[in-house]
Amino acid sequence: MKVVMQAEELSEYLDEIFPQARGDFVIEAVAEHAVRVRMPVAERHLRPGGTVSGPAMFALADVSVYIAVLAMLGREALAVTTSGSFDFMRKPAAMADLICDCRLLKLGRVLAVGECMIYSEGVEPPVARVSMTYAIPPAR
Amino acid sequence: MKVVMQAEELSEYLDEIFPQARGDFVIEAVAEHAVRVRMPVAERHLRPGGTVSGPAMFALADVSVYIAVLAMLGREALAVTTSGSFDFMRKPAAMADLICDCRLLKLGRVLAVGECMIYSEGVEPPVARVSMTYAIPPAR
Amino acid sequence: MKVVMQAEELSEYLDEIFPQARGDFVIEAVAEHAVRVRMPVAERHLRPGGTVSGPAMFALADVSVYIAVLAMLGREALAVTTSGSFDFMRKPAAMADLICDCRLLKLGRVLAVGECMIYSEGVEPPVARVSMTYAIPPAR
Amino acid sequence: MKVVMQAEELSEYLDEIFPQARGDFVIEAVAEHAVRVRMPVAERHLRPGGTVSGPAMFALADVSVYIAVLAMLGREALAVTTSGSFDFMRKPAAMADLICDCRLLKLGRVLAVGECMIYSEGVEPPVARVSMTYAIPPAR
Repeated sequence: MKVVMQAEELSEYLDEIFPQARGDFVIEAVAEHAVRVRMPVAERHLRPGGTVSGPAMFALADVSVYIAVLAMLGREALAVTTSGSFDFMRKPAAMADLICDCRLLKLGRVLAVGECMIYSEGVEPPVARVSMTYAIPPAR
Repeated sequence: MKVVMQAEELSEYLDEIFPQARGDFVIEAVAEHAVRVRMPVAERHLRPGGTVSGPAMFALADVSVYIAVLAMLGREALAVTTSGSFDFMRKPAAMADLICDCRLLKLGRVLAVGECMIYSEGVEPPVARVSMTYAIPPAR
Repeated sequence: MKVVMQAEELSEYLDEIFPQARGDFVIEAVAEHAVRVRMPVAERHLRPGGTVSGPAMFALADVSVYIAVLAMLGREALAVTTSGSFDFMRKPAAMADLICDCRLLKLGRVLAVGECMIYSEGVEPPVARVSMTYAIPPAR
Repeated sequence: MKVVMQAEELSEYLDEIFPQARGDFVIEAVAEHAVRVRMPVAERHLRPGGTVSGPAMFALADVSVYIAVLAMLGREALAVTTSGSFDFMRKPAAMADLICDCRLLKLGRVLAVGECMIYSEGVEPPVARVSMTYAIPPAR
């Protein structure tokens, strides 16, 4: 199975369908069943105590799995998140970008399963692990 | 075990520690080990196709469990989310508020487990289920 | 939607397809989108320290969601577990039966989501919460 | 941090505390924060349709994370499973052993998080992913 949308095309498509998120996520790499996405951390992502909020990490994982599915299936893919789980293991550094390494563990006819390891730039162990299942509606 | 912070005091405290979220969440009811929180749905929570985004539902569940812990332990509680899971079962209506019914299934010395059922106002079956574990650091 | 298999018929069917589990699970009640299943706790379910093992609780939840789906869809249902999550909140009593209250939060065309609260007989708060997603293959 | 119990010592210890599971699990490799455990598949693990049951895969993941924690902390470790999640992605082959690659993503003072990829011997993509959080009670 081959990548059918590359980083630039994916970025343009995301800007088109999520204009309100423009600039929030940077697609750094796209490969078969895998993408890397950066989230430049901004004031609105922070929590008291100087850490990145859980919902911000969730949003990064959610968009990363969606991008990984799009990269393989193309813009007709209408995947919707159905379930998932997360472990927030360490406090991300307050003003370091988050880097999300996402891998599709399964890309079936009906379900896709993606797993994300999220890193705080400059720190070795992952700060979070998130897995998501996406349902892929039948092509129209 | 008794509720130690009521809805009004909890709201003021949240505005103080999360000023950027002022108005995003309305605490509607507080009881022993249970809270109800409303999220007035706004343009920024929406996704193409006219539905509320997964990250918005996650944020609602996250703040609801946090409020439920605060209500029982008071403002000294420094709980942090450590893990959780979610099922997104139905598409929320686009412009209906979300209502989150959160129940603490456990409030231990070290860990609290909360479960949230999220409803799209006016629709009977829940749109999402989210559970979260919070770690409670030892009191200073 | 109506129940199409009642407790007795479900029990016979389980004995037929899982003969090795005969007697492990007792279907106590069947209702629309909900079942109650008892697991008589035996020596082989125990862990050092006199508690019921996690895998035994998982097995109880797994069979309960499966029974709840069968009760609604009938024996043609070929549902398979695709994902799920669990919180083990309290130590079950060593020699008390486990009671599992399972509710289908969703029974769609493709996916079913069930949630189980597991109780140690005679103790009020639940000992575990488990949710499971089952994929329902298209009818043959 | 160093491994404090090697495979042979871990096996003897497991046989001692879980005599009923003797022979069910074979510890194949132990490294810092990582173990590999094999489950020789037997008749009792199978499901109709010739596949390994979900509870059998859960049990393998559960024991693997426990072994990984013991390997690092020693036999005084009294870790108990508190929560987790799983994705069952593919049907394991009926009579192939399962191989579980477990990695500790976190080994904190209070919580350990382990993640397992489970393989059906001879098949490349993983059949399941399981993560588990263990609570580590304070040393006595």
